[in-house]
Amino acid sequence: MDLAKVRADFPSLQSQNGRKAVIYFDNACQTLRPRQVIETINRYYHDFPACSGRSMHRMAAEVTREVDQAREKVAKFLNAGRKEEIIFTRNTTEGVNLLASALNWRPGDVILVTDKEHNSNLIPWQMVAKRWGAILRVVRTRDDNTFNWDNFEHAFKDGAVKLVAMGYTSNLDGVTLPATDIIKYAHRQGALVFLDAAQTVPHQRVNVRALDVDFLAFSGHKMLGPSGTGVLYGKYRLLEQLEPFLVGGDTVSTSTFDSCQFLPPPEKFEAGLQDYAGIMGLAAAVQYLSQIGFDSIEKQERLLNEYLTKALSEIPGLKIIGPADPRLRGGIVSFYIEGIDHHRIALMLDQMANIAVRSGQHCVHSWFNSRGVSGSVRASVYFYNTLEEAQQFVEALIKIRKVL
Amino acid sequence: MDLAKVRADFPSLQSQNGRKAVIYFDNACQTLRPRQVIETINRYYHDFPACSGRSMHRMAAEVTREVDQAREKVAKFLNAGRKEEIIFTRNTTEGVNLLASALNWRPGDVILVTDKEHNSNLIPWQMVAKRWGAILRVVRTRDDNTFNWDNFEHAFKDGAVKLVAMGYTSNLDGVTLPATDIIKYAHRQGALVFLDAAQTVPHQRVNVRALDVDFLAFSGHKMLGPSGTGVLYGKYRLLEQLEPFLVGGDTVSTSTFDSCQFLPPPEKFEAGLQDYAGIMGLAAAVQYLSQIGFDSIEKQERLLNEYLTKALSEIPGLKIIGPADPRLRGGIVSFYIEGIDHHRIALMLDQMANIAVRSGQHCVHSWFNSRGVSGSVRASVYFYNTLEEAQQFVEALIKIRKVL
Repeated sequence: MDLAKVRADFPSLQSQNGRKAVIYFDNACQTLRPRQVIETINRYYHDFPACSGRSMHRMAAEVTREVDQAREKVAKFLNAGRKEEIIFTRNTTEGVNLLASALNWRPGDVILVTDKEHNSNLIPWQMVAKRWGAILRVVRTRDDNTFNWDNFEHAFKDGAVKLVAMGYTSNLDGVTLPATDIIKYAHRQGALVFLDAAQTVPHQRVNVRALDVDFLAFSGHKMLGPSGTGVLYGKYRLLEQLEPFLVGGDTVSTSTFDSCQFLPPPEKFEAGLQDYAGIMGLAAAVQYLSQIGFDSIEKQERLLNEYLTKALSEIPGLKIIGPADPRLRGGIVSFYIEGIDHHRIALMLDQMANIAVRSGQHCVHSWFNSRGVSGSVRASVYFYNTLEEAQQFVEALIKIRKVL
Repeated sequence: MDLAKVRADFPSLQSQNGRKAVIYFDNACQTLRPRQVIETINRYYHDFPACSGRSMHRMAAEVTREVDQAREKVAKFLNAGRKEEIIFTRNTTEGVNLLASALNWRPGDVILVTDKEHNSNLIPWQMVAKRWGAILRVVRTRDDNTFNWDNFEHAFKDGAVKLVAMGYTSNLDGVTLPATDIIKYAHRQGALVFLDAAQTVPHQRVNVRALDVDFLAFSGHKMLGPSGTGVLYGKYRLLEQLEPFLVGGDTVSTSTFDSCQFLPPPEKFEAGLQDYAGIMGLAAAVQYLSQIGFDSIEKQERLLNEYLTKALSEIPGLKIIGPADPRLRGGIVSFYIEGIDHHRIALMLDQMANIAVRSGQHCVHSWFNSRGVSGSVRASVYFYNTLEEAQQFVEALIKIRKVL
């Protein structure tokens, strides 16, 4: 990977009007976008800003073809069995909600989550528990936030687990679950597995068929794609069994005043006119990432995280959330300094050095509430970040530590 | 309105590589987009492609400010009481589904629709009927598809109507309901009113406070806005009472493993990262439409529809769906010619004259099934269409009529 060449693809990484470019370490929230994605979005609005599927004129035919190709590209990217297993959504959250609504729940069904789920993979299951009498069971992780296999196995003891619904890679600390083993075990116990892969798919190769995962969701805007794009993957025979979720135009083949005939997946789940520019842009993002390659992406993130972890460990009073080994935390360093407000650190990084990080509880309130930690500063890097940026971040943090 | 100047704003209306520009008469599906909207989308991706709300750095602060201003602009455009009454969605369909899911239904509750609803304002209510034992009651229109007041009043006879949910302007024939009177009557009967205004808001001034409507939904992509954008308006005190729909990140202020605290509207309903570029683009579309002005928009649509109606009426065997008077049909002329396949007409218009229209049942299958009509060709114009284009459309249609 030629880092200078890659960075030149990102308009938001260029200095503007003599002002130094941002050091963007908030990639776990959203990544920046390369011109290839932006140009694809523009191509839609300039050349054929029409509907997909419904009309027969050439502009609409072009959109239909592009959306179809995008679905094919995303399916290949995940190694899905067929493109009809790809449902386009607005974000990971919508995928979780779709699944929570569309599975056929019975009172007493158990849903397994970990103790550090993003609210988007927690609140929907709380609603299922409330509405259908399902039981939400929390599998506690070890003290260092890595997966606790004993607790996981123990949670199956009553044989009532219907669904394992877990964050594949944590947005809190970057830890990735041993998904292959989890899925094998869950399947042997007769449970389905859903993975919230919002923080996984952008950073490492995810092969849904090798994993044998039943459902998996992720977001486009965390992997160079347009804002407000996402995907829910599901095994086709399972998607066929799901109840419809959002319904209306394009989900049915015909209707009378009191009946309708639903189309097969994915149409059944994509109600109304979709974000065609976004879907095309997401395919362009997938293509860009494939060209960079996950070997290069992981290598750069590891380089940066090893440097950051070593340097931050030397700052007095600073605690990194999750395991000590940076190779277990992908591109994320989440930390707090006892006695210093995390928001204040984030604000000073921004004001002093134009460094963008996130501070707070990162939508994982339940973990912070259970551990009695008030919040953290999260630096999250991506392949376009440089060692020089990481050095500037550390320098700024050392300065801030001295002042506060 | 300077039509030449307006048309110059639309990249897709310019001839490309010597090829004649499209005559785009498929505006009821999606409209084209002016450069002002496209540039706004680009500004997001170039200058601050970050999250709203969650992070504190200056890029995120800029997005938060822009989204807030967009909400304010849309609220003003509708004359809503406050910006928190504006919920951003992907499309009208999502707004209908949100409402269908979030209202507190009891068995026997009656929902009133007309006999020519778009599937997106029919199937969600069929699902409510199926799931909660509500009753879907169809108010038949007159033979010419205009509102039948007697049938409407009669539908209230048992006092069980909880919600009137109707298409404000029909995508089938362009007829607009007498909404003010409908709402007054329904409120006197203790019913709530939802309007599917996907075909209204782009074409005429909609004042939600003057209407006193309870809920109203529309789409951005039918009014110059980005693809995959929409709005659900609701009176604030009613939105507060709704159950949550899509839940997860950004809908709650905090969470524990078995509880959460929902935020007030609109946050409660906007789960996960949103389409910030789309929201900003929608605000730019609202601004563009406001500058053109609804007087000019309606005047141009009337001019074109009067011409088209007169010219089409002279074609042997051609029947226009809906009332004869074009002033009652906005920018829509939906027609069929006995014995000639509607899809074939649409394809020939495209191939012979580069004219884009829609053919089929326009997601109003229930109306076509009940009237025994197989489908129609729908020409739908917008303010940027010209009389010359309308003339070319008529000429092409006359040629096609002679051949088929």
